[in-house]
Amino acid sequence: MQEIKLIDIKKEILSENADQANEQRRRLEAKGICLVNVMASPGSGKTSVILQTIAALRASFSIGVIEGDLDSMVDSQKIADVGVPAVQIRTGDACHLDAQMLAPALEEMEKHNVNLIFVENIGNLVCPAEFDLGEKLKVMILSVPEGDDKILKYPLMFTVCDALIVNKTDYLTMPGCNFNMAALRERAAGLNPGMAVFEVSAYTGEGIAEWSEWLADKASLKKLQTRN
Amino acid sequence: MQEIKLIDIKKEILSENADQANEQRRRLEAKGICLVNVMASPGSGKTSVILQTIAALRASFSIGVIEGDLDSMVDSQKIADVGVPAVQIRTGDACHLDAQMLAPALEEMEKHNVNLIFVENIGNLVCPAEFDLGEKLKVMILSVPEGDDKILKYPLMFTVCDALIVNKTDYLTMPGCNFNMAALRERAAGLNPGMAVFEVSAYTGEGIAEWSEWLADKASLKKLQTRN
Repeated sequence: MQEIKLIDIKKEILSENADQANEQRRRLEAKGICLVNVMASPGSGKTSVILQTIAALRASFSIGVIEGDLDSMVDSQKIADVGVPAVQIRTGDACHLDAQMLAPALEEMEKHNVNLIFVENIGNLVCPAEFDLGEKLKVMILSVPEGDDKILKYPLMFTVCDALIVNKTDYLTMPGCNFNMAALRERAAGLNPGMAVFEVSAYTGEGIAEWSEWLADKASLKKLQTRN
Repeated sequence: MQEIKLIDIKKEILSENADQANEQRRRLEAKGICLVNVMASPGSGKTSVILQTIAALRASFSIGVIEGDLDSMVDSQKIADVGVPAVQIRTGDACHLDAQMLAPALEEMEKHNVNLIFVENIGNLVCPAEFDLGEKLKVMILSVPEGDDKILKYPLMFTVCDALIVNKTDYLTMPGCNFNMAALRERAAGLNPGMAVFEVSAYTGEGIAEWSEWLADKASLKKLQTRN
């Protein structure tokens, strides 16, 4: 019988990506740079949370932001407007960033002598969860208007992250808002017990201090934590 | 010089998908069934808009809903709870539905003698825009909390759709809401002049009648419109 050769494209892609991501992680770690991969749905407030975090931590860290979008420079302009180095990656039609796409942006960013880099991934709760960028920390944002059931529908994203930021808590008082924070926290603890959860409003500033302190603590660790 | 054989996987995938989608479109058209592909970010209110549309149109159409999710039966249960046939597709890790995934769900749905089928696609503004399912109408939902800049960042989705539903208009009065409806409408008219735009709140019911009338009119057309 003929042997059948299976070409598993996805497995190959993820394997090549992991190799490059690990190389990037080693290099950044050696240079004392903490890379944070920020993932979320479109419109969950990624840029707003990053801007608030910059305000909280810019006295302690030299910060840069890499923005990933299919098109436009909207977000990188907001970062540059507050005097922080920004690099925009335009993906055209790609629904996630991968380690290779990030490489030239990292090279550009490392010229700025930063030690804390945020990557704002494409707005998507699915594919970004699968692609390691060489980051030290994976952080996801879920906004209150999206609903507390997203953890049931997009479990992988909630499984791989080191921190979950629940943003737009100011929407909890909207008429008709049925977001159940306790239920979300319980499901998150069941799915990913090690994940830190922060309730934040990038609009009012609520919760930003707590999240920023956690991040500062993680970013300052000298040794790279082994991802389990 | 050796000729280089290029295997363009994505092109092949899209081409095979288009063939199956066209076959599905022909069969549904022959049976007088209107298939509506509903696309949006996670948490934009796809299920809520579909439920409101069911309430508005169930006297005139025999309706069914096919739900696509990575995991869970949350949405299909909400449809079944109002006595409408529902089929759940679980994709595991796929970030969009394609024509092949839809085939068994359509077969199941056609047993119910429906003439209007909503497909609630995976919550994702990127990949679903590229995959024809054999639908008659592509409809996207953008919710106010996501922001009016999504058309700049995810232009393809706004380009391929027949209708844009701007949902959660009740959030326009939130403190700090800077959603610019006029700017969105202007950008939408520039990018896709043929796209109908509806301002809707699935929570208050505002705008549902206007959108439902438009849909009823399109769904009743005997001839399949050729997609340009």
